[in-house]
Amino acid sequence: AMAGCGWARAVRGLLLDGSGVLYDSGADGGVPIAGSAEAVRRIKASGLKLQLCTNETQATRENFVRKLRAMGFDISVAEVTAPAPAACRLLKERGLRPHLLVHDDLVPEFSEIDKTNPNCVVLGDAAENFTYANLNEAFRLLIEMEKPVLISLGKGRYYKETDGLKLDVGAYMKALEYACDVQAEVVGKPAKRFFESALAELGVPPEQAIMIGDDIVSDVGGAQQCGMRALQVRTGKYRPSDENHPEVKPDAYVNNLAEAVDIILQQL
Amino acid sequence: AMAGCGWARAVRGLLLDGSGVLYDSGADGGVPIAGSAEAVRRIKASGLKLQLCTNETQATRENFVRKLRAMGFDISVAEVTAPAPAACRLLKERGLRPHLLVHDDLVPEFSEIDKTNPNCVVLGDAAENFTYANLNEAFRLLIEMEKPVLISLGKGRYYKETDGLKLDVGAYMKALEYACDVQAEVVGKPAKRFFESALAELGVPPEQAIMIGDDIVSDVGGAQQCGMRALQVRTGKYRPSDENHPEVKPDAYVNNLAEAVDIILQQL
Repeated sequence: AMAGCGWARAVRGLLLDGSGVLYDSGADGGVPIAGSAEAVRRIKASGLKLQLCTNETQATRENFVRKLRAMGFDISVAEVTAPAPAACRLLKERGLRPHLLVHDDLVPEFSEIDKTNPNCVVLGDAAENFTYANLNEAFRLLIEMEKPVLISLGKGRYYKETDGLKLDVGAYMKALEYACDVQAEVVGKPAKRFFESALAELGVPPEQAIMIGDDIVSDVGGAQQCGMRALQVRTGKYRPSDENHPEVKPDAYVNNLAEAVDIILQQL
Repeated sequence: AMAGCGWARAVRGLLLDGSGVLYDSGADGGVPIAGSAEAVRRIKASGLKLQLCTNETQATRENFVRKLRAMGFDISVAEVTAPAPAACRLLKERGLRPHLLVHDDLVPEFSEIDKTNPNCVVLGDAAENFTYANLNEAFRLLIEMEKPVLISLGKGRYYKETDGLKLDVGAYMKALEYACDVQAEVVGKPAKRFFESALAELGVPPEQAIMIGDDIVSDVGGAQQCGMRALQVRTGKYRPSDENHPEVKPDAYVNNLAEAVDIILQQL
């Protein structure tokens, strides 16, 4: 397929991004990217380990997996590493009680967390919940805290849905950071700790794992910082200008997940 | 009144901020701050020149002045320096056709500007127009430009209305800057060019002018950068922590505009 596929050698596990790699998001739940469902089946049949490493925060993992299965993906809840459960661990460790500015469908992930008298704000991709009123409410809570604590589930700039590009949680994080003169703590990609959790669940050390994503900074840059190889697919939010990124250079570009899997399986 | 009022000497003109100095903004148009209307009358009776230097972008200057007069302020349209007219000059100079993400009531300020086939985005304090859909629309226009041009009418972090603090245009500017990897051009305070326009309209050189505002960075810092003296009032968005600001130190703090005018008139 491609010249120079040394990057595909000595692999035992794959971390896959969801939106833009498996499917394009959309109002109706999304559309699978051609060949991706078959690619997931081929990964599993090959004996390679597989874990989704997603910043998806518009649904609980259970609903997210239901959506994936409806699109034809053979994925279980245990194969999904997502920001909300990681945030819950962090909240419990530090005794934080969040005000949630998240998508309605994510709220059940926080069912066991005390949310009375909030002492931090947790920001996810709230989509339609990113209203002027909700943003002002989160802002006021933060600015009134002696030391504002803002936890952001990812810091993506934007993503692609079937009806066009949408601002992602990172843009709203920057708005609140600036207004409150505070730096958010990011849970999710590209945080190193998050990739390390995904690798632990994958059960493979970083040097034997490859991350496959459509986000040059969050997926590719983040994974490489953890010692993994990382591919950028030319699907989802990929833009040709990504190939001139001043700081991040993927180990390889592939047209889509199916092509990546072709090459990797040939090297096994 | 205060010890050490050297800062009040040799003054010929005053630049005043509007919201937080003359009045507190609110859904019903706002409430005058006690003593401010009388203070404006005393400034005018003294022979001092006066110009409002405001980042107000929720109304045309005509409607803004109507609101001020209804609250008892003796202010005319010619006495108001505001970002929208400055932005129109800039758009014309550079042949820019804006997509407007601004308050409905500001739109008439741009009536003579060609808005077809936009090649830039102008962002104001859009308030209720800061919807998820409108932000995504502005973002998409920018990200599809070869070289995105974002013009922001001010970069305030937040302001106080009668029902609480609200995110200001600067927060949304940061969101779009981050999502598009672009730096906005700010028209309005604290841009030097904007203060220079206000001084030209005041007809007084910077060393004989005092800016009076409630925003430590935008009002006080911006004016000082132009060679003016600047006072911070302890009304509006003032917070005690402003007095420990790492970079900006006002020439003096005053409890309110009325106190500032008392001191300045005593020194005439």
